[in-house]
Amino acid sequence: MAEHDLRQTISLLTRTPAALDALLRGLPDQWTSRNEGDDTWNAFEVVGHLIHCERTDWIPRVKRVLESGESRAFEPVGRVAQLRDNRGRLLEELLDEFRHLRAANLDELRALNLKEEDLERRGRHPALGVVTLSQLLATWAAHDLTHLHQISRVMAHQYREAVGPWTRFLGVLQCAGHSSA
Amino acid sequence: MAEHDLRQTISLLTRTPAALDALLRGLPDQWTSRNEGDDTWNAFEVVGHLIHCERTDWIPRVKRVLESGESRAFEPVGRVAQLRDNRGRLLEELLDEFRHLRAANLDELRALNLKEEDLERRGRHPALGVVTLSQLLATWAAHDLTHLHQISRVMAHQYREAVGPWTRFLGVLQCAGHSSA
Repeated sequence: MAEHDLRQTISLLTRTPAALDALLRGLPDQWTSRNEGDDTWNAFEVVGHLIHCERTDWIPRVKRVLESGESRAFEPVGRVAQLRDNRGRLLEELLDEFRHLRAANLDELRALNLKEEDLERRGRHPALGVVTLSQLLATWAAHDLTHLHQISRVMAHQYREAVGPWTRFLGVLQCAGHSSA
Repeated sequence: MAEHDLRQTISLLTRTPAALDALLRGLPDQWTSRNEGDDTWNAFEVVGHLIHCERTDWIPRVKRVLESGESRAFEPVGRVAQLRDNRGRLLEELLDEFRHLRAANLDELRALNLKEEDLERRGRHPALGVVTLSQLLATWAAHDLTHLHQISRVMAHQYREAVGPWTRFLGVLQCAGHSSA
């Protein structure tokens, strides 16, 4: 099991926008606008959520740790704001916005020039309690992967009937999802 | 639930190689060469499996349906050949090979100029019995998604410890996997 490595984290964070762009841009709506049923997200909404997190979660929380340590908890991140904010927009606009925000946030992260000892600095999560900067940054990368995992599952769900008897050989169709991601 | 639509299927099949390339090319080995434990695949091996399927599964089976219908079952597809075939190769070579094979296979598929009624033609799977061409083609797309789902899970697993208490908020870390994908 790998321990957290900042270079490894940044390498993934750098690639996610292009990976989602290559997968989703120009896809027919049947893939991107359909979800898994009531109160679930489609691929469009997942990209909206990633944008929302770029604005309100990762870098603001990194700064909170550096500025306030454990004394001031992170602001909670709304999990439905993007459903309201992105109505009527195109998926292509969201992919562009995600790419730009991510690039700017990685610029900010690099400019902080964090040292190994900084990664042990502690902050306070409103639900989870004390967390380290290292855990926060590792979670940023794992959060990309959780939503890539979700998007592939939501899209596969659209072919649940179409694959016929192959359903039982396709792992993604056995995945019932895990919370809302 | 969408029924199978050939244009929708091809739109996804076209994008998968570029999506995997954008995600994986140049990533540090910690992301791509580590698996989930004994007898599981790392991202490198999953790409190898996708290559093997391009060679031995989808188009050969499409042709078998068109040539022999239900009278001659598909050849079984080995699930471990790529572990042997790709030893010592670079992930970048595999990504190139997957892209080329997929493009050539989609050219072949388009050249068949399949009509709506062709999609109802039937073949025989060695384990599943009678299947339709439509189900086979839908499975090709869903199989891409099952392995994208797997890759995101295998990579996230590498940060299971690093994310600390965030583990329980990350859906992908609740996913125990489903068969070998």
